[in-house]
Amino acid sequence: VPSERQRATERGLRAGAGGIKGDLILAVAAERFAQQGYEETKWADIAAAVGVGTTALYHYFESKEHCLFTIMEQVLADHCTRFERIVRRGGDFTDMLVDVLYDLFDVSDGDVLRNRLFVTEQSLLHTPHASPRGESARQAAQARSRDLEFLWGAFLSRGMQQGAISDHPPRLLTRAVLGLTNSVWHWYRAGGRDSLDRVAEIYVRRTLGTLGLPPELALPPGASRSPA
Amino acid sequence: VPSERQRATERGLRAGAGGIKGDLILAVAAERFAQQGYEETKWADIAAAVGVGTTALYHYFESKEHCLFTIMEQVLADHCTRFERIVRRGGDFTDMLVDVLYDLFDVSDGDVLRNRLFVTEQSLLHTPHASPRGESARQAAQARSRDLEFLWGAFLSRGMQQGAISDHPPRLLTRAVLGLTNSVWHWYRAGGRDSLDRVAEIYVRRTLGTLGLPPELALPPGASRSPA
Repeated sequence: VPSERQRATERGLRAGAGGIKGDLILAVAAERFAQQGYEETKWADIAAAVGVGTTALYHYFESKEHCLFTIMEQVLADHCTRFERIVRRGGDFTDMLVDVLYDLFDVSDGDVLRNRLFVTEQSLLHTPHASPRGESARQAAQARSRDLEFLWGAFLSRGMQQGAISDHPPRLLTRAVLGLTNSVWHWYRAGGRDSLDRVAEIYVRRTLGTLGLPPELALPPGASRSPA
Repeated sequence: VPSERQRATERGLRAGAGGIKGDLILAVAAERFAQQGYEETKWADIAAAVGVGTTALYHYFESKEHCLFTIMEQVLADHCTRFERIVRRGGDFTDMLVDVLYDLFDVSDGDVLRNRLFVTEQSLLHTPHASPRGESARQAAQARSRDLEFLWGAFLSRGMQQGAISDHPPRLLTRAVLGLTNSVWHWYRAGGRDSLDRVAEIYVRRTLGTLGLPPELALPPGASRSPA
């Protein structure tokens, strides 16, 4: 199993010139924040783990908060991209819904840590930040959060128009779905007593129930649908 | 509308000698932590708001964390007490379930703030605390959290044995129910665009769906059931 740092370096290399070190810092920081706790982690420890001085680190992120908000924006942007990729393919509403829900749990160990960090620290997105680059990253993450709620709300509205799910305020239904599925990252641990496949199966079926749909719609991924 | 401080003073007076000042500190701290953010709130501000010096404050709580963990323990203990009060009455499983779910949303503005504080800071319960009284309060809160999961798990198991809800690992189903219902406190604001009654109605019905039950079971509270 490659370490988070190795994988981040690979991602950085793929991302091209300029982003390598920045991506490495983000990956190392996400891992530390999620495993040791965000408040407990010292910014200098991240510099040491990445192997750069604090002055060089400052070139990329002006503070721990700036780094956190950037990670959160990436988590939300990834979610939006993956959501749109599935919905853009079109097809039956409930098929797309099941694909989107299973996709939430089709994540790497690194994604699990980023998701955990996001759910435990998301309330920090509501408080303005003192420094300009940190505040700008916070606002970018907030904008992505609104994008994600909008995508989900529009998708669920379409399901209501088609009569596939019953009428509800789309904003509240979106929050219920995200509240239920995000709650997994509070307690799920890779290598723990419940496998992610098992958690995914149970949560996808229960989320269908939350939306008033029969859980039997959740065939194992790929069983009767086109591969992602 | 009485202020949180007035209400806390009343609660303190009812609680009897010894607990008055401690309860006032807890109420003021919960309000500040929830509204300004836990990290942003200075411990000295709590002392000033309550009208005691930091030395006197230390008599009650040795640190901000000690105070936070004590609030969290109270939130969880209240949840356990209310849950048990309903379930102890006995009767039909689904009637009790609907009552328990509506009861989660039958809360004061002060409870809303305490719930918000709990859901935003609950991850701090996993990290051992350096000072003895703080660590003891943290462990007490963790024990209450396990109590609550046990109560819910045992209750849901009973529903499965009776065939009222379908078989699932009770621990995972408990976490799904608590994940969905607790998520409300992340975004709900008293006086905001959605009334708590409306949120309660939607979330109780959606939670019944999560458990595979028809949402129609959720008659308005008291409609066909005995008063609480």
